[in-house]
Amino acid sequence: MNIHYLTLFPEMYDGVLNTSILKRAKDKGIVDYNLIDFRDYSEDKHNKVDDYPYGGGAGMVLKPEPIFNAMDALEVENPRVILLCPQGAPFDQKMAEDLSKEENIVFICGHYEGYDERIRTLVTDEVSIGDYVLTGGELASMTMTDAIVRLIPNVISNQESHEQDSFSTGMLEHPHYTRPREYRGMKVPEVLLNGDHKKIDEWRYNESLKRTRERRPDLLD
Amino acid sequence: MNIHYLTLFPEMYDGVLNTSILKRAKDKGIVDYNLIDFRDYSEDKHNKVDDYPYGGGAGMVLKPEPIFNAMDALEVENPRVILLCPQGAPFDQKMAEDLSKEENIVFICGHYEGYDERIRTLVTDEVSIGDYVLTGGELASMTMTDAIVRLIPNVISNQESHEQDSFSTGMLEHPHYTRPREYRGMKVPEVLLNGDHKKIDEWRYNESLKRTRERRPDLLD
Repeated sequence: MNIHYLTLFPEMYDGVLNTSILKRAKDKGIVDYNLIDFRDYSEDKHNKVDDYPYGGGAGMVLKPEPIFNAMDALEVENPRVILLCPQGAPFDQKMAEDLSKEENIVFICGHYEGYDERIRTLVTDEVSIGDYVLTGGELASMTMTDAIVRLIPNVISNQESHEQDSFSTGMLEHPHYTRPREYRGMKVPEVLLNGDHKKIDEWRYNESLKRTRERRPDLLD
Repeated sequence: MNIHYLTLFPEMYDGVLNTSILKRAKDKGIVDYNLIDFRDYSEDKHNKVDDYPYGGGAGMVLKPEPIFNAMDALEVENPRVILLCPQGAPFDQKMAEDLSKEENIVFICGHYEGYDERIRTLVTDEVSIGDYVLTGGELASMTMTDAIVRLIPNVISNQESHEQDSFSTGMLEHPHYTRPREYRGMKVPEVLLNGDHKKIDEWRYNESLKRTRERRPDLLD
């Protein structure tokens, strides 16, 4: 998979793409990351990428030329082109699974500004990672990259993938305990220590259900 | 504000905390970032931070000692202590506003593993940034940091803050346009060019409403 990032802050990706799973996926040759500073594609003599909105109002608007030109230069076939914006469809695990099967993903990351509406004609998906305001699309694109890349076969080992399995049951995880048996006066529940796997499974199922009911009843619908 | 990150991958934060708004907030002396590698607080002779789960099952569990010891060493008064996990309350703009008023925020970032349940006794808030599985809490903590820090007074200028204002109307943003008037055959709508501000406001309101109805009817409830 090739992942392309159209951004004004390529240096922002340094730590994240070179650590842990995302680094490993690259080192294994499974994924490649392509950072594109779209300021290089401005048609403005001062390399300006934004301008005032028609009709007035606060804030700047990202001009169409840098994005259109950067996309022209990309030359990849049938990419998924993702615009990160608060108006987008909420990102979820199902979308991550869907995107993990793509050959080419392009993230268009605005920063501060709104997007000129014509940029949307280049886009296959508008996505938001949550109902909060971020300074730019960069962190959203990194977050999506992590969720997507870890689903590609051979990127993570079975041992690391348990969270994912639990998510797919539609319930929140049951509590976990590890050594020591007692820590600062707090003990591991007896049921986990006696080796009765039927009872352990029952306890875990009930705790999952209880936690889901208390915290996220919407998931049970 | 002081933001403390308990993580096994402090280097992952390099690009994000040293770019754009987050860098500016630090340079202005408004925020300080404190990265703590909690492996340094392991009581294990091999610096192990995780272990097998009691009761069996796949995956590893983060041990309580490194987190408890790191918290002991922190010595800050009444911090908000945020555990990043899929079981947490969904992060949203209201929570960002609330957290932007704190003096000390601690993020506890697991990686791959589940948390030993006793760690939860140290925590004031369990938070999830969305219904998708991430490799660790690091990207979630950076995303929250961005959403929170940009709300602290004097971090961003008025010009940059328009997205936020629009979000607080409870509707998605209307389309934006900037120069050129025509680009690759696509024209800016006439109404935005004629200077009639009553009509412009009307058009924008209707477009906002239309987009919200189509994409996020849940926001209108």
